[in-house]
Amino acid sequence: MTVTYTHEVADCRGFGNFWRLLFRWKGSVYKLVWPDLFMYTLLYYGCSAVYRYALNEDDKRIFEKISRYCAYYSDLIPISFVLGFYVSIVIGRWWQQYQTLPWPDSLALFISTSISGQDNRGRLMRRTIMRYINLAYTITLTMITPRVKKRFPTIDHLVDAGFMTANEKKIFDGISERTPHSIHFVPLVWAGSVVARARKENRIKDDFAVKTIIDEINNIRAKCGGLLSYDWISIPLVYTQVVTLAVYSFFLSTIMGRQFLDPKQKYPYNDIDFYFPVFNFLQFFFYMGWLKVAESLVNPFGEDDDDFEVNWLVDRNFTISYLIVDEMHNEHPELIQDIYWE
Amino acid sequence: MTVTYTHEVADCRGFGNFWRLLFRWKGSVYKLVWPDLFMYTLLYYGCSAVYRYALNEDDKRIFEKISRYCAYYSDLIPISFVLGFYVSIVIGRWWQQYQTLPWPDSLALFISTSISGQDNRGRLMRRTIMRYINLAYTITLTMITPRVKKRFPTIDHLVDAGFMTANEKKIFDGISERTPHSIHFVPLVWAGSVVARARKENRIKDDFAVKTIIDEINNIRAKCGGLLSYDWISIPLVYTQVVTLAVYSFFLSTIMGRQFLDPKQKYPYNDIDFYFPVFNFLQFFFYMGWLKVAESLVNPFGEDDDDFEVNWLVDRNFTISYLIVDEMHNEHPELIQDIYWE
Amino acid sequence: MTVTYTHEVADCRGFGNFWRLLFRWKGSVYKLVWPDLFMYTLLYYGCSAVYRYALNEDDKRIFEKISRYCAYYSDLIPISFVLGFYVSIVIGRWWQQYQTLPWPDSLALFISTSISGQDNRGRLMRRTIMRYINLAYTITLTMITPRVKKRFPTIDHLVDAGFMTANEKKIFDGISERTPHSIHFVPLVWAGSVVARARKENRIKDDFAVKTIIDEINNIRAKCGGLLSYDWISIPLVYTQVVTLAVYSFFLSTIMGRQFLDPKQKYPYNDIDFYFPVFNFLQFFFYMGWLKVAESLVNPFGEDDDDFEVNWLVDRNFTISYLIVDEMHNEHPELIQDIYWE
Amino acid sequence: MTVTYTHEVADCRGFGNFWRLLFRWKGSVYKLVWPDLFMYTLLYYGCSAVYRYALNEDDKRIFEKISRYCAYYSDLIPISFVLGFYVSIVIGRWWQQYQTLPWPDSLALFISTSISGQDNRGRLMRRTIMRYINLAYTITLTMITPRVKKRFPTIDHLVDAGFMTANEKKIFDGISERTPHSIHFVPLVWAGSVVARARKENRIKDDFAVKTIIDEINNIRAKCGGLLSYDWISIPLVYTQVVTLAVYSFFLSTIMGRQFLDPKQKYPYNDIDFYFPVFNFLQFFFYMGWLKVAESLVNPFGEDDDDFEVNWLVDRNFTISYLIVDEMHNEHPELIQDIYWE
Amino acid sequence: MTVTYTHEVADCRGFGNFWRLLFRWKGSVYKLVWPDLFMYTLLYYGCSAVYRYALNEDDKRIFEKISRYCAYYSDLIPISFVLGFYVSIVIGRWWQQYQTLPWPDSLALFISTSISGQDNRGRLMRRTIMRYINLAYTITLTMITPRVKKRFPTIDHLVDAGFMTANEKKIFDGISERTPHSIHFVPLVWAGSVVARARKENRIKDDFAVKTIIDEINNIRAKCGGLLSYDWISIPLVYTQVVTLAVYSFFLSTIMGRQFLDPKQKYPYNDIDFYFPVFNFLQFFFYMGWLKVAESLVNPFGEDDDDFEVNWLVDRNFTISYLIVDEMHNEHPELIQDIYWE
Repeated sequence: MTVTYTHEVADCRGFGNFWRLLFRWKGSVYKLVWPDLFMYTLLYYGCSAVYRYALNEDDKRIFEKISRYCAYYSDLIPISFVLGFYVSIVIGRWWQQYQTLPWPDSLALFISTSISGQDNRGRLMRRTIMRYINLAYTITLTMITPRVKKRFPTIDHLVDAGFMTANEKKIFDGISERTPHSIHFVPLVWAGSVVARARKENRIKDDFAVKTIIDEINNIRAKCGGLLSYDWISIPLVYTQVVTLAVYSFFLSTIMGRQFLDPKQKYPYNDIDFYFPVFNFLQFFFYMGWLKVAESLVNPFGEDDDDFEVNWLVDRNFTISYLIVDEMHNEHPELIQDIYWE
Repeated sequence: MTVTYTHEVADCRGFGNFWRLLFRWKGSVYKLVWPDLFMYTLLYYGCSAVYRYALNEDDKRIFEKISRYCAYYSDLIPISFVLGFYVSIVIGRWWQQYQTLPWPDSLALFISTSISGQDNRGRLMRRTIMRYINLAYTITLTMITPRVKKRFPTIDHLVDAGFMTANEKKIFDGISERTPHSIHFVPLVWAGSVVARARKENRIKDDFAVKTIIDEINNIRAKCGGLLSYDWISIPLVYTQVVTLAVYSFFLSTIMGRQFLDPKQKYPYNDIDFYFPVFNFLQFFFYMGWLKVAESLVNPFGEDDDDFEVNWLVDRNFTISYLIVDEMHNEHPELIQDIYWE
Repeated sequence: MTVTYTHEVADCRGFGNFWRLLFRWKGSVYKLVWPDLFMYTLLYYGCSAVYRYALNEDDKRIFEKISRYCAYYSDLIPISFVLGFYVSIVIGRWWQQYQTLPWPDSLALFISTSISGQDNRGRLMRRTIMRYINLAYTITLTMITPRVKKRFPTIDHLVDAGFMTANEKKIFDGISERTPHSIHFVPLVWAGSVVARARKENRIKDDFAVKTIIDEINNIRAKCGGLLSYDWISIPLVYTQVVTLAVYSFFLSTIMGRQFLDPKQKYPYNDIDFYFPVFNFLQFFFYMGWLKVAESLVNPFGEDDDDFEVNWLVDRNFTISYLIVDEMHNEHPELIQDIYWE
Repeated sequence: MTVTYTHEVADCRGFGNFWRLLFRWKGSVYKLVWPDLFMYTLLYYGCSAVYRYALNEDDKRIFEKISRYCAYYSDLIPISFVLGFYVSIVIGRWWQQYQTLPWPDSLALFISTSISGQDNRGRLMRRTIMRYINLAYTITLTMITPRVKKRFPTIDHLVDAGFMTANEKKIFDGISERTPHSIHFVPLVWAGSVVARARKENRIKDDFAVKTIIDEINNIRAKCGGLLSYDWISIPLVYTQVVTLAVYSFFLSTIMGRQFLDPKQKYPYNDIDFYFPVFNFLQFFFYMGWLKVAESLVNPFGEDDDDFEVNWLVDRNFTISYLIVDEMHNEHPELIQDIYWE
Repeated sequence: MTVTYTHEVADCRGFGNFWRLLFRWKGSVYKLVWPDLFMYTLLYYGCSAVYRYALNEDDKRIFEKISRYCAYYSDLIPISFVLGFYVSIVIGRWWQQYQTLPWPDSLALFISTSISGQDNRGRLMRRTIMRYINLAYTITLTMITPRVKKRFPTIDHLVDAGFMTANEKKIFDGISERTPHSIHFVPLVWAGSVVARARKENRIKDDFAVKTIIDEINNIRAKCGGLLSYDWISIPLVYTQVVTLAVYSFFLSTIMGRQFLDPKQKYPYNDIDFYFPVFNFLQFFFYMGWLKVAESLVNPFGEDDDDFEVNWLVDRNFTISYLIVDEMHNEHPELIQDIYWE
């Protein structure tokens, strides 16, 4: 589920609100980072124990030299820079993907205004067009999101859910057999032909309305295609690997490089042995958390806390579509004068 | 209220104008940062007092080692980089949200030009369409801004304010009961149906005007939806936490790390004891102020000095809408030759 | 006036052209920075004189310690980073504001093509629509730019300049009294009604042309509204203050921190006393100039060298509008075969 | 072929998924970097061998001095910064190019809805328009992608593949002879004229549909032109050279600068001789990998693992176009009530 | 001429292709930088010679101190950061300018489809509209590009080239005398009136086509205006000066700061005298090359290797325009069944 905290940070008073966000668990950096941190802590104290208890004095000297070597060179890996650029790209794509999600509301509004008639055939046409739109959208979502895929593993499940009729499934399967390519857009073609029929039967009064509706259907088709594009063309693997390599190798090197060395050896900044390398763990939280921002947003259609609630969307769209084009189609208030009328 | 200073910085003469802005209080960094600064100062001088008066010489040496350790490692937290990227994203969203605010002026202009008639029914239609638009907008705002929510806590308050009639409320509540989803857009559907009726009664002369008006109503619907999206999908919590953690942990570490140590111990850059760590506080102002930029803009619909004046907007939109479609509808100047006519 | 140098840098040959730009005064960094530089120099040499001539040896030692402390910590203020991000935002807004300036040329072209008739009434309609457009634009500009405000301090000045008739002013004032809100868009509503009248009189032959013209009028309204938005919603004051504080405090600290200390004290990089701290002044030019980029662009409607020439724009738009819709309306060349006709 | 890994990173649980991506070969940084790394390793150990076995003691001292000089100055080359900016530009263009690829689906939908008739002439018109669109697109692709060029080296190959008829080729060649400029858009002009004919024969019922179709044909033309623009106007060579020079010269200098020097000479951070400079190779992977991101994306129409699958696209577009406008043109489901009908 | 290298970098195999680009001269960084480099080398070795041969020992010590002072402080000028931001802005504008170049192809396609008739008057109208479009475009280009200005220094040259008739020139001059403002758009107004005449003569069959054509003419007008805007509003001079100052002063300081000092003086990193400061020259190439990227792109209409080939564009546009609307107007292939027809 999406993690919303906008209302908690509406005002910036007193100490502000950001510090309060630090105590949330759901969708938090702690939840994402803790397994890595746990493993990191194990490795760190493992090395530390070897140094403190297992090595003899000569080996300790060698250990110290390796540690100082790691400490020096690990700082040469400029991960903050590459993370900054990479996360910017990921967040940019994440928001673009959200904006690529189509909403059937506009089309419902157009159809409610344009296709008249309270008889069964009028209602049927309005409902069917909206059903086709939502069907195409839902099929698209099954192709890109595990959540919706889990809910509708096959076309049959869509039929069971009432999103498709048995007859439609037969035709859909027929087309599907003829081509290896994805045919998620087929219900949109059907919707277009229902619109054409409605015009022929003069339920749609003018060509303008037809154009508006067809343009909007096409807009939804373009957005479904856009979603598939984001799914198909990932951020180049090389870039992701480069960033991941940088972060992981940095932390592997700090396992050796940030060990507390024997203060008696007088290495700089090793005057004192804290046993717990607090800044090390802070840095781990910081950089690993930054990488996890990318990791949880790179595919916003998964089941992370921060991912989009696509199943909710599917239900909402069906409900609202039917509501606008059918249920509230006739319940419009009368025109009466407002209280400021003079 | 929005803090406007554009006119004060129109020209860049002499010493420029930016330094003058430093002496403003409203919407200033001082106003946002002072509670944090106060707490920080308390902690800093608390530690300082312990070091100076409470510790014996041996403990002082340990204190100094801890201090130097903190000073060294706190510089490893690259907060300026992560703040730069994060604040860029926040400011980008902040301005996009402003641009997502719909303005009813265009629609009023279209309606004033297209729906003719000075009789009551003509006026009623024009006023009602505009009222529905503003109503939908206001309902949307109650969902995202505490200020407007406070003004109209329930639908009844909208009725009292004259934005909705009792009959409309009944229908609205009826629809509301049928679905758990937000139905802020319902008045827009009503507006669409009034337009359709006006066309049927031939008050709108051509299909073009209908299309223009319906497109604009839909545009306003899309913008209301956009505002809800920004409200629903926050900047990922992980990112905000990472940035906040970085800034807070940096300053916690400087509380120890920037203490003035006994000059006699000859630590580098501790030759002299100023008692007041001026650069430390400057840095605090700087980084904490940068974070507060994010904190006050992350939700621009709150009650911060820099937030958008949404209640003013609601009033302005109603007034201007009625003005254009009704009050000034007939007061158009005659066509007379301008003075450059030759 | 806008400073144009594009033609001087058309080619990049020999030593290139950028170095030549260093010798320009108008709109230059020197012109913007010199008062600050002057003040900075005074303070620097004031401190220097105190150190060299007024202090005894012991005080000199203290001065030196303060100086080295300032030198060390001033480097911790990462102004280049925050300046980079801030100036990017300012330049982004500056160019967007330029692009938000509406141009009446398109509308004039539409009107010239659509509203036919060389009789007085046809000319009158065409001229009046264009006059209203330019009037609304000019009223908008008086609200945001000191230059145009100076030229037209009141509506009466617009009447005197022939942009408005006395009758129109009366109606405008009447509307103005009824609402506290800005009514700069009123002439656009008038223009819309003239278009509607022209259609009714069949001077505009088809509904398409009406739609095109009304859409363009609305586009201009949106752009005027956009200009007011940029004026109303400044870059958050906090951000500007944070950047200004960073730059000013950095330079205040370098006044102490970059003093030439007695070479005999063997402080590092103080081997030699140049009296003139050339790098210091270069850095001042550099950072302060960068800040001045922001300062002169943050409001591009002022009277800086680099600001937009709005008064020129007002005149240009009136002249060109009348030229297209009236003066050249009939002087179209005959259709004759071009020389490549075969 | 495009490397898709979106589904593998849908969720961020446990240790996340990014580390798993490190073990992929196809499209990986290892596959791109290994030849360079091999060469680098050879050079590194060559120098190392010379130092260890070939030089006498005096020469070793000189070698060490050179090495330390290289180590010091190589760090002055700020490649991470320039790489960050350059790769951002390359990735921006890469995604824009993907979005510039036209898709014939919208047009097919429009044509299926607008051009009626199941007789041969209706089918012929619909199929021919789509064939012309895909033909123009394919010709454009032969001009910019080696893969499609290889498949269709000449116009004759297009005729053989059934994308063009012999008669069309004759006309195409005739036009081609008259001008040295690219005439890839000619089939689009033909498509336009088929649309005009269909309107004249009243197969297209209204002018709106004509406008929609012509606008879409023009949209595809614009996108083909856009693809050619990206091909014609590369990222300025200077920029690419500057970045490449920086990376290569950095690594050339590290070959000398990161040699393990004799620990006995007590150079800092040379306490121990590891023989294998692990951080050096990590840095190589990191920076060279970052450059390879740019190198493989700068032309996304090549045969890299991450490049767009253009031949697949050509086939898919032909198949889907025919499917929509012909094969499924009549197989639309009947209107029947959905299961939620009440 | 534009430097295209996209095809050479289609694939990233073996050692990749970027290193090959280093050996190109045309449009290369070497070609742009060598005069500066030559001058820099002269100054460097001049100083070096003075130090080595002209100074006595005491002066050498002073020289060394100055050198070390320069070396230390020159590193405080953060040019990579300011260059990164500045070049990003320049490259952004460069590509936007390319995209602002109008292409007459769409209009030609619309006109070929809409204006029927193979008689002389039909051909004349089609050709004349296209000629006017290209004329306006060419006049715009003479105002912003030295290359086209050189080719058509006066309107008479346009008449000689057959782009304008003598009669048209007379009218154009007449209008030109009445206003001091640029009237490059006048031929577009003429084109609009030819379209209106074609509609009146019923050569254009419907109002839709008129709207489409007028919209496209207006689009071209907007793009011509956009080109003039980029010419008129340069990147603020202050910014360019700040960047240039930073780069030049950095290199002036390195002339002193990077001299090889007498190794006997034991200055750090001066253990050895190479005579040739290889890293210095690499850095020069790098930073100066980066600045030259900006310098050659800041005005892409000059005669640099990387500038747009505007004269080629003018010819191409005329040829293709005539080709589409006249020469190939009737040579459309017959409708015959494709080979996949079943």
